Amino acid sequence: MNAAAADCGLAGQIIAAIRAVVGTRPAALHEPHFAGNEWTYLKECLDSTFVSSVGKFVDRFEQQLAEYTGARHAVAVMNGTAALQIAMQLAGVQRDDEVLIPALTFVATACAVRYCDAVPHFVDSEQRTLGVDVKALRAYLQDIAEIRNRQCFNRTTGRVIRALVPMHVFGHPMDIEAAVTLAQDFHLALIEDAAESLGSTLHGRHTGTFGVMGTLSFNGNKTVTTGGGGAVLFQDPLLARRARHLTTTAKLPHRWEFQHDEVGYNYRMPNLNAALGCAQLEQLDGFVAAKRELYDRYRGAFARVAGVQLLGEPPGTRSNYWLQTLLLDESAAGQRDLILAATNDAGLMTRPVWTLMHRLQPYREHPRMDLSTAEALAQRIINIPSSSQLAAAGAH
Amino acid sequence: MNAAAADCGLAGQIIAAIRAVVGTRPAALHEPHFAGNEWTYLKECLDSTFVSSVGKFVDRFEQQLAEYTGARHAVAVMNGTAALQIAMQLAGVQRDDEVLIPALTFVATACAVRYCDAVPHFVDSEQRTLGVDVKALRAYLQDIAEIRNRQCFNRTTGRVIRALVPMHVFGHPMDIEAAVTLAQDFHLALIEDAAESLGSTLHGRHTGTFGVMGTLSFNGNKTVTTGGGGAVLFQDPLLARRARHLTTTAKLPHRWEFQHDEVGYNYRMPNLNAALGCAQLEQLDGFVAAKRELYDRYRGAFARVAGVQLLGEPPGTRSNYWLQTLLLDESAAGQRDLILAATNDAGLMTRPVWTLMHRLQPYREHPRMDLSTAEALAQRIINIPSSSQLAAAGAH
Repeated sequence: MNAAAADCGLAGQIIAAIRAVVGTRPAALHEPHFAGNEWTYLKECLDSTFVSSVGKFVDRFEQQLAEYTGARHAVAVMNGTAALQIAMQLAGVQRDDEVLIPALTFVATACAVRYCDAVPHFVDSEQRTLGVDVKALRAYLQDIAEIRNRQCFNRTTGRVIRALVPMHVFGHPMDIEAAVTLAQDFHLALIEDAAESLGSTLHGRHTGTFGVMGTLSFNGNKTVTTGGGGAVLFQDPLLARRARHLTTTAKLPHRWEFQHDEVGYNYRMPNLNAALGCAQLEQLDGFVAAKRELYDRYRGAFARVAGVQLLGEPPGTRSNYWLQTLLLDESAAGQRDLILAATNDAGLMTRPVWTLMHRLQPYREHPRMDLSTAEALAQRIINIPSSSQLAAAGAH
Repeated sequence: MNAAAADCGLAGQIIAAIRAVVGTRPAALHEPHFAGNEWTYLKECLDSTFVSSVGKFVDRFEQQLAEYTGARHAVAVMNGTAALQIAMQLAGVQRDDEVLIPALTFVATACAVRYCDAVPHFVDSEQRTLGVDVKALRAYLQDIAEIRNRQCFNRTTGRVIRALVPMHVFGHPMDIEAAVTLAQDFHLALIEDAAESLGSTLHGRHTGTFGVMGTLSFNGNKTVTTGGGGAVLFQDPLLARRARHLTTTAKLPHRWEFQHDEVGYNYRMPNLNAALGCAQLEQLDGFVAAKRELYDRYRGAFARVAGVQLLGEPPGTRSNYWLQTLLLDESAAGQRDLILAATNDAGLMTRPVWTLMHRLQPYREHPRMDLSTAEALAQRIINIPSSSQLAAAGAH
C-alpha cells in the first residue's frame, strides 16, 4: 500500500493514534527496562563466582516471587515452556492423556503437552477476556466426556482428559474462578498459565495462584525478564519439593554420591539469570503502573478511531496490560494484514495473535471443540507497542 | 575415622599431597574464574537491552566456538543436556530405538535418550582413557547385532540400535577415531559428548568434531561457564540449520506470523549467558594451560604416594585436565569412601565418579554389555580439587 492510502484509511488512523502516544520514533513491541539494581546484582553474582544453578539469587528470586504472587512456593526454571512441562508432569499428565488447552495461545503450551507424550485438545475462547470460554467448555464436556472412578474420559477417543491449562492472554485475567469450579466438577488438574500475567489479579488474588499450579515466564519480551526464565507457583509444599527434585536431575542429596531416582531434568534457573530477575522484580509495580498508564493514553488516542476497539481489563480484574491489544471490528477484519504491514513499515512494531494451535502443522489432527470465537478473534487482534517506557514518551 | 588414622593411612597421605599443591585453605572441586571481559560484556549486553534469545553475543559465542574447535557450525543452547537431546533427535533417534552410551557417564546422557523415548543401552569403559572400550564394544555388537538395510538391529530385543554417544571423561580424549570406524561399520550415528573436554584434542583435532555432531556444556563447574549453557557442534550446515530451527520453537521466519512446522523446543541460549561465555572463551587457552600445570604439580606431589595413581592424558592427546583424577590401586579400592570422607572433612572437596547408569533406579532394566571394567573403575576413581586458579596457589 502507499502512504496516501494509509493516511486516509484505518491503517493511517491507527498509525496516527499510536504516534500520538509513543511519539514519532520507531517503537518496538515490547522492550525490557533496566533501571534498578540490575548492575549491582549481576556484579555481586560474578564476584561470588556462583553463576550457575546454585546460589543465593535463585533462592531470593523464588522468595520474591512467592511473596509478590501470594503463592506458598515458587520454583525458578529455565523458561516458561519448562515450567509448563514440569507442572503437567507433576499433575500426572502421562502418555496418551488428553490436556485441554486454548487454541488461542502461544505454541509452548501445545509443545509441553507433547513433551509429556500427551495429546492437546483444543478449546475455544471468549471475546471479553480472550481466555478460555469456560461456559462453552462445560457444555462441550457434558457432551463428550464421562466421569468414571473420579477420572474424566473422552467418550470419543477413550482417553483420559487429565488437565486443563487455561492462559491469561496478554496479561488480562480470564474467568479463572469459573475454571476452578469446572476443573473440580470434571476431575481435571487445573494448571494456570500465567506466563503473560505477572502483576495481574482477579478479585485481588494474583493470577497463577488459583490452579493446583501456576506457571510464569521471564523471557526478554515479558513484563520482567531474566534473559530466559520461568517459574512454577505452588500452594502445596510437597509438589514444590517434587518440582525442585525433578528439575535438578532428580539427584538425591548426598555429600558426594550421584544417585538419581527418576528421569529428571536439568531445568533450574542459573544464578546469573536470577540476579537479573531480583532487580527486575523490585521494579515490577512501577512497570505495571506505567503499562496501565500507557493503556489510558492509548484509550484517549483510539477513542476517535472508528472500526477498532482497545481491549481493557475485564471487570473485577487488574491487568498488567502486558501487550496492548486492538480488536478490529468484524467489518474491518479483512484489513488486518494491511494494517500490520503499514504499521510495521512505519516503524511501529505490531503483530497479530499467534496462529491458532489447531492450524499449525504438528497439531492439525488433534481433537478440538468448536473454535469459532477463537477463529474470529484471530482475524481481529493486533498488538501495538507496549513497553513500559512508552508511558513516558507521550511528553514530547 | 579420626585425624590420627587419616594422618597415618592413605587418606592422610592424599590430604598431604593435595595440600602440598593447593595450600592449606579449603579447596572446591571446581570453581569458575572471571578475570577477563566478563563484566564489560555483561554491561554491554544490559545496555543493549538484548538479554534474551536474540542478540549479538549469541552469534559471537557460536562463532568463537566454531573457530576454537574447528567445527563448521556451533549452535548454543540452554545446557549440555539440551544439546544431547537435540543432537540425538537430529541423528534420527526415535521412540523405541536403542542408543549406546557408556555406563560410566553423567546422568544427562541417559536422560537425553529417554527424552527421545528411546532406550539407553550401556557399554563398558577402558581404564586407559575412562572412555568407551571400543574394542570390547565391537566384539559385543558382532555378537548381538545384525545389519539389515543399512540399519543395526539388536537381535535380542528386535530394536534398531540408532546411535553411539561416547564421552570424553574428565576431559581426557577417548579413542574416538576407533569409535568413528566402529560407527561406520555398524551404521550408527556417532554423537560425541564433549561436555567435559572443551580444549582437549586428539592428534591435534578438537574433541566433538569427530562425530556427526558433538555436544558441549558450560555449566558452572566446567572449564568455561555461561551460568548454564551448552552447544552442538556440526560439520553439516543443513544439520546446523535444523538445530537452530528446532531449538527456537520451530518457528518459520516471517515479519509477524507465528507459524511452527514441527514440535520444537525453547532451548536457545540467552544473550546474557552468551555474553559471559564470550569473555570466558577468550581465556580458555590460559585456563587449560593452568590446569595442565596443576596436573604437573599434583604429579610431583603424588609421586611418593603408594596405592594411588594420578590419571594422565592418553598418548596422542592433549587433555584440558578438566577434573584431576586419582585412580586407587585395586587393593586400595575398599578405602574409597574413607578417603572421600577424610578429604571432604579436611575442606578439600573430592568426589567419586558418578554412580554407573545401570545402577540408577530408572535405568536398571535397560540392556547392557558386560560392564566389569566400569564397575571396577567406579570403586577406584576420586576427583580432587581442579580449579585453574589452584595452579597459582602452590606459591604459598
